[in-house]
Amino acid sequence: MLTRDELDEYCSRGLVFLPGLFAADEIAALNAEKTRIFSRPSAAHLRAASGEYLGTTAMDRVSELYARLLCDERLLSIGEQILGPGLYCHQYKIILKEPFGELSLPWHQDYAPWHHHDGMPAASALSIGIFLDDVSEFNGPITYIPQSHRHGLIDYEVIDVPGTTPIPSLPHRTVAELVAAGGLVAPKGPAGSVTVFDSCTAHASGQNLSPFPRHLIYLSYNPVHNAITTPTRPDHFANRDFTSLASAPAGQLLR
Amino acid sequence: MLTRDELDEYCSRGLVFLPGLFAADEIAALNAEKTRIFSRPSAAHLRAASGEYLGTTAMDRVSELYARLLCDERLLSIGEQILGPGLYCHQYKIILKEPFGELSLPWHQDYAPWHHHDGMPAASALSIGIFLDDVSEFNGPITYIPQSHRHGLIDYEVIDVPGTTPIPSLPHRTVAELVAAGGLVAPKGPAGSVTVFDSCTAHASGQNLSPFPRHLIYLSYNPVHNAITTPTRPDHFANRDFTSLASAPAGQLLR
Repeated sequence: MLTRDELDEYCSRGLVFLPGLFAADEIAALNAEKTRIFSRPSAAHLRAASGEYLGTTAMDRVSELYARLLCDERLLSIGEQILGPGLYCHQYKIILKEPFGELSLPWHQDYAPWHHHDGMPAASALSIGIFLDDVSEFNGPITYIPQSHRHGLIDYEVIDVPGTTPIPSLPHRTVAELVAAGGLVAPKGPAGSVTVFDSCTAHASGQNLSPFPRHLIYLSYNPVHNAITTPTRPDHFANRDFTSLASAPAGQLLR
Repeated sequence: MLTRDELDEYCSRGLVFLPGLFAADEIAALNAEKTRIFSRPSAAHLRAASGEYLGTTAMDRVSELYARLLCDERLLSIGEQILGPGLYCHQYKIILKEPFGELSLPWHQDYAPWHHHDGMPAASALSIGIFLDDVSEFNGPITYIPQSHRHGLIDYEVIDVPGTTPIPSLPHRTVAELVAAGGLVAPKGPAGSVTVFDSCTAHASGQNLSPFPRHLIYLSYNPVHNAITTPTRPDHFANRDFTSLASAPAGQLLR
């Protein structure tokens, strides 16, 4: 659950940052499991043209730990507090920004691909990012435009990004207007920190210039009543299991 | 002149940051003159394959204001304090990181190209960057590795960068070792701020994700007795006029 101040911040700015929400031993276990997941070839992995892994998807199908994380009360309670009860996970990813990696993501709203590719009816979903590494200004933090969620879905252009599905992204002129109104913020903190953001909050990230990885777990909660209607992508990008998630106590994550 | 503490910092870390060294009216004049310089085609301009300007060189040959800046006592006194009297300018550039621009620079030491392309005998030179715009974490600040200058010239690999001469750059493994020892720092501050750094201080910069430009004046002072011996590049990249510069009072920049 968010405090009242945190909830106000989420509603007003379209994101809230929760430093250190997960403990070091939990992050260590999630990182070890990540290594195991990538040790096996899978159609759910995201790869660059070079063959380098950029990430993976639908980790709950291959990992009990990652399946439990989706139901962890520290996350699901926030989702239910904001969106109401009856949530499922639309998209579940690990994004690997490797040391000196080229991966960068253009300005976009998460709801745009969910609308464009998956037929999600309304922009009533949210995203959660969990830092698997310490995030600094040097290893490619995600940069958000506060208040940009207030506009709902904004007109977009679809552009290709290596290793993943094309991203409906925001024109530069639009970004300039949004930044003039809301500014920019790039949450930074220790591994285990969490960013919760609205599906219409615009964000982007640059290259990782540093020798430090920046691996991120990324999940989205969507109300069952807002389940996608016309998916065009494989189900590891757009989940078709609309069963609502049941909260589990935080102490059970590492059971 | 640097204070004793600033000089100690430069010697120990290989760089020192001087916020707000130039006044707003001086920066406004330099920006207006920059616009005039780019309004005329020139072989000294740096262009991307797209035709977009990435920067220009040897501005002192086309602008009295930029010629005076090289001799401004606020800069030249620092050069002479560190390197001794009898300095000339080896390289003089404006680098344009435009809003949403792709330009990024790999990890390198400035002395590497001066040695590799220009035949500069010793690594006894320094570089000065002058912010023509406010620099934040969002518009592609230059990131430095403190203490990396202590190693002198480090083994490099020559890589191509669009719009400029190939850059002898540092292997990733080397960068990781340097960062483990010295960390990373990215000076940020208002337009008019200045970074002074050793010609062997490793640095890099990423893309500019933001709607804000990040234009930078960049100059290097080299002792006349260390003048380049075997230049292979046009003289707007590697000056052949080794006349020592004479300091002029700060008040004369906008005369």
